[in-house]
Amino acid sequence: MADIFEKLVKNYGPIGQHRERAHGYFAFPKLEGEISSRMTFRGQEMIVWSLNNYLGLANHPEIRKVDAEAAAQFGLASPMGARMMSGNTSYHERLEAELAAFESKEDAILLNFGYQGIMSTIDAVCGRHDVIVYDAESHACIIDGLRLHPGHRYVYKHNDVEDLEKQLERATALIDKQKTGGILVITEGVFGMAGDQGKLKEIIELKGKFDFRLLVDDAHGFGTLGKTGAGAGEEQDCQDGIDLYFSTFAKSMASIGAFLAGPRIIIDYIRYNIRSQIFAKSLPMPIVIGNLKRLEMLRTMPELKEKLWSNALKLQAGLKERGFDIGNTNTPVTPVYMKGGVEEATAMCMDLRENYKVFTSIVVYPVIPKGHIIYRLIPSAAHNDEDIEITLKAFSETKDKLDAGAYKVEAIPDMADAR
Amino acid sequence: MADIFEKLVKNYGPIGQHRERAHGYFAFPKLEGEISSRMTFRGQEMIVWSLNNYLGLANHPEIRKVDAEAAAQFGLASPMGARMMSGNTSYHERLEAELAAFESKEDAILLNFGYQGIMSTIDAVCGRHDVIVYDAESHACIIDGLRLHPGHRYVYKHNDVEDLEKQLERATALIDKQKTGGILVITEGVFGMAGDQGKLKEIIELKGKFDFRLLVDDAHGFGTLGKTGAGAGEEQDCQDGIDLYFSTFAKSMASIGAFLAGPRIIIDYIRYNIRSQIFAKSLPMPIVIGNLKRLEMLRTMPELKEKLWSNALKLQAGLKERGFDIGNTNTPVTPVYMKGGVEEATAMCMDLRENYKVFTSIVVYPVIPKGHIIYRLIPSAAHNDEDIEITLKAFSETKDKLDAGAYKVEAIPDMADAR
Repeated sequence: MADIFEKLVKNYGPIGQHRERAHGYFAFPKLEGEISSRMTFRGQEMIVWSLNNYLGLANHPEIRKVDAEAAAQFGLASPMGARMMSGNTSYHERLEAELAAFESKEDAILLNFGYQGIMSTIDAVCGRHDVIVYDAESHACIIDGLRLHPGHRYVYKHNDVEDLEKQLERATALIDKQKTGGILVITEGVFGMAGDQGKLKEIIELKGKFDFRLLVDDAHGFGTLGKTGAGAGEEQDCQDGIDLYFSTFAKSMASIGAFLAGPRIIIDYIRYNIRSQIFAKSLPMPIVIGNLKRLEMLRTMPELKEKLWSNALKLQAGLKERGFDIGNTNTPVTPVYMKGGVEEATAMCMDLRENYKVFTSIVVYPVIPKGHIIYRLIPSAAHNDEDIEITLKAFSETKDKLDAGAYKVEAIPDMADAR
Repeated sequence: MADIFEKLVKNYGPIGQHRERAHGYFAFPKLEGEISSRMTFRGQEMIVWSLNNYLGLANHPEIRKVDAEAAAQFGLASPMGARMMSGNTSYHERLEAELAAFESKEDAILLNFGYQGIMSTIDAVCGRHDVIVYDAESHACIIDGLRLHPGHRYVYKHNDVEDLEKQLERATALIDKQKTGGILVITEGVFGMAGDQGKLKEIIELKGKFDFRLLVDDAHGFGTLGKTGAGAGEEQDCQDGIDLYFSTFAKSMASIGAFLAGPRIIIDYIRYNIRSQIFAKSLPMPIVIGNLKRLEMLRTMPELKEKLWSNALKLQAGLKERGFDIGNTNTPVTPVYMKGGVEEATAMCMDLRENYKVFTSIVVYPVIPKGHIIYRLIPSAAHNDEDIEITLKAFSETKDKLDAGAYKVEAIPDMADAR
């Protein structure tokens, strides 16, 4: 008879296996001080490229003022209970109305947390006879939503519209055979690791050939793409073809929570049937009021998005000029692809932090295939030219060292905090 | 070929079907003003029994002060990103350490939202060869966690230890046959609808006969039960037998977020592998600091719990004296069971609100069987004797009217807000 805990401690998982030397440095690092392009890591000021604070709103004086005032006025406890039972307020309803209008949808529902919000949305919309067709690189929250789905699902190759068409054919054949059920296609406005946009326009064009509804998770597109910042649908001029538009507040809005916008009768259905909201506490009032202010600034201060893009394009152009491979990004998300072993990547990332004062996130095996290294840089409106110049120089120099094999010989010290 | 949206608008669900006349009144009501035992509903002051503000912390001046100061100091955006990537802070770690110590466990992990936290905990701990055995009346968040489980599960009749034993026999036989996997039993410290405690002590005694680990969701027990408020495990003197102790901050703590406490090596495994935390934003700093203060007050001000219990026992004794059926509650949660149709319940609940100024939540068919009515009253340290007296009188008088058939004749007006 086995103990259910036994297997856990035998294998701490892809990142957990390195926890003893990585904790506090590569995993669970502490970035201290005011949120900006420069923060303190282990006592040293660093240029930080790891925060999804695209528009620089996190620490904008007007945001800070509203956040402080709302917390002083309402405290962080109010309202208590789920929206449906006792946690509804006029502020929540106003934010829903403003988000719906901004996204050119009839209605919107606030979600108390993005992860559970989209999981539970998929669960609320899809019954056992329905078929979900989704992009292979969908975010974990979508995958977990799929796992709640009792019916069939077909995955299509990442952003491959031809393969999507094949999967839609399979899904349609199944629905026809069942004589009941419908199809939901799920993709993202922006894929957060690689920075490429979902091919929304091409996907929506398939509605001429197939009957399906489209749910788009636009976590990284909201606020960063489109003329007004309304996201990937606006950017690609196909917002009307998105049936359900989802975004978190955790990126451009620099907050927590999320929303889903769509046709009024469907949002109303979801409002009354989405388990993670019906059975869990409403978003605290200061978060809602803070998000009203963030949305207002996102809408009325195009200079924030312009600054973001100016920084993103400078960073990306600089990397490309220096011969770096940044893949297919067409958004501010800036991956940098390199080749090297885990130990080399570790040493290089430490060199960047310790000697160049550049803090980036890094992904290696076993999260990605052996021999590959991905740095992921998130430029924001809070960065400046000096941040970019220093970073480009740091990447050039460390890449030269990597190519020269300089990181192969270094012993990897134990960087973990005392636990 | 069907549209996936079509079925949704054909049936808006158990509560949604009544939304046109219920919205804003029975569903999604707005309780306005400072959180206390008296709040404003549709312009009228009411005694409110619907908030899980057990200890009255939501609006305590010391809490309000800390909430306001923390928001002024840090804003509501900080930290950005998931704990593992960029959202870790010393405050988060301190709250984890204090919660672990308070629950007499080696370690604890903060969860950015309770619902997704427990779902994802179940997912992180249980593999496909493991078997989950759970109480039939488990909360929706546990059920959704079970739905992520690819292996077997056995349900036992609510709080029926004999049936649990049968299910453990089945689970053990399956594990023996598989020659791999373990058993996780999941129950609650307090069942939030009926107010009865999970029979933790009896369940833990079964560890003498069966190999299993126990996960307890103590959302309503944390802060309300046990000598120090550590919850149902302390109350029943069996805290050591709870392997994983979970509570939300949404009840006694009057906040958002949650935590899981247990053995260090298991919490560490979960810290590195729990999807809803690895892939979602960290709890905002002012929420963490506010919860540090709440925990301190919960620990150091036993008078809050004493006042809660004094109010709960007065309310429950008063109801029983007046002949009301409050079931088997042995916690502050106070259900009141009645018989009557949906229309009668609706009229009675409106009478309570409009004429007696008593605001309670009510549950009717199809959420519970036809002909049954459940009122659910949550006493708190914020209530006073007058609140209780008025409420008892209101319940007596309206119950007399119900029994006399007075609510049968009334037409039910449309109480919905203009949408």
